Amino acid sequence: MKTFKIILEYDGAGFCGWQAQGQGERTVQGELESVLLKVFKKPVMAIASGRTDSGVHARGQAVSFKADTRMKPLEIMRALNSLLPSDVVVREGTRVKSNFHAQYSVKEKTYRYTVLNRGYRSAFLRDRALFYPYSLNMTRMRRAARHLVGRHDFKSFQAYDPLRAERQTVRTIKKLALKKEGELIFIDITADGFLYKMVRNIVGTLLAIGSGQLPTEKMADILKAKDRKAAGETAPAHGLCLMQVKY
Amino acid sequence: MKTFKIILEYDGAGFCGWQAQGQGERTVQGELESVLLKVFKKPVMAIASGRTDSGVHARGQAVSFKADTRMKPLEIMRALNSLLPSDVVVREGTRVKSNFHAQYSVKEKTYRYTVLNRGYRSAFLRDRALFYPYSLNMTRMRRAARHLVGRHDFKSFQAYDPLRAERQTVRTIKKLALKKEGELIFIDITADGFLYKMVRNIVGTLLAIGSGQLPTEKMADILKAKDRKAAGETAPAHGLCLMQVKY
Repeated sequence: MKTFKIILEYDGAGFCGWQAQGQGERTVQGELESVLLKVFKKPVMAIASGRTDSGVHARGQAVSFKADTRMKPLEIMRALNSLLPSDVVVREGTRVKSNFHAQYSVKEKTYRYTVLNRGYRSAFLRDRALFYPYSLNMTRMRRAARHLVGRHDFKSFQAYDPLRAERQTVRTIKKLALKKEGELIFIDITADGFLYKMVRNIVGTLLAIGSGQLPTEKMADILKAKDRKAAGETAPAHGLCLMQVKY
Repeated sequence: MKTFKIILEYDGAGFCGWQAQGQGERTVQGELESVLLKVFKKPVMAIASGRTDSGVHARGQAVSFKADTRMKPLEIMRALNSLLPSDVVVREGTRVKSNFHAQYSVKEKTYRYTVLNRGYRSAFLRDRALFYPYSLNMTRMRRAARHLVGRHDFKSFQAYDPLRAERQTVRTIKKLALKKEGELIFIDITADGFLYKMVRNIVGTLLAIGSGQLPTEKMADILKAKDRKAAGETAPAHGLCLMQVKY
């Protein structure tokens, strides 16, 4: 048995996330495993760095699997790409040590949230960016974001979900950068790990602060509260993209 | 009656082009006119700068129409955007002189053709760029493109189509620029007018030259031949986007 790591790009618009919650849902894992079965003629389990929710995109989702094969990583990548549907593609393929595990071996992950901040929506970005037509103060958002960088208990930003909530809610945000490029705002967050819907809850809170619904100073209180009710709304899934996973 | 000009952005992937060829096809004109009917309570005919084919995108399609209304252009734009489907949007709206005609008044148009030139396809660009995994020589393509700039008979680049072929096939290409940005190649063409499938036929020929299937010098011969058979294949529709129309 050999262990492989592949890097996946997928357009989340057509998927009910990485892993199925219910029956008959189209998932990235489902599509990938059905193609792995065709390539290796045996069921192969695909393990992602983490589950992405319905509508969330990936440019750099890392996935590991084991297979008894003589195929080289590049051959596997080409075989998968020739069979995978057009909204998911393998960008890289490498052989890794047998103890590598795409979920447990993660060192850090980077997510990008994209906001289209102008008066009218976009036909091209309809599934890729949050359309937000209200004025946003970047200085206030950046000042509020600074409170989140470092090692903190992010319980206030963890979604209620008995199946996905974690007890240990301390994480380290290594980088939180807000960039404005024309009418687009990119919120890039790198951390050693993320709680369920943590990025979307942080983005929702930053938007509330940027638009003036919440005062800038409020961010420190929200963090201290360790209560989901203290933070802002959850930003929609379609603006979110998993950019990179480091091991 | 007042005359208005609007600038439309649309994702061509979900449309059978601007205007229907057959019954029951989803078209941009059809979607727009059904919304114009709702806003003005009367049938309103929408005239585009030109028909875009099935799968072709637009960032700056110009459309004119006449309506008996007290609404201001910005109000019309907002009303249309609130009713139009998510893959088409009005970017600008202005009132114009009554003799303005979006098709007949055109001075120049700019199209962009996008090529993804790398070894593996993209989930995000699957409907927006031509995936071309073979090596392309930009110098050769640029040298060949130079032959096309200026006033020429472009008959060799006009698609056969008894309904859309034009007798007068002389046009002026004002600008033809090839840009490489990472793995993307942009081919931007500005002309006073375009023959049917002219951009896609030029792009197909440039790709044949860039990949070495045709010699660079061949471009001058193709132009002289005034015969569609002399030129390269028609590049697929989904890489093409109407960027701007000038009046």
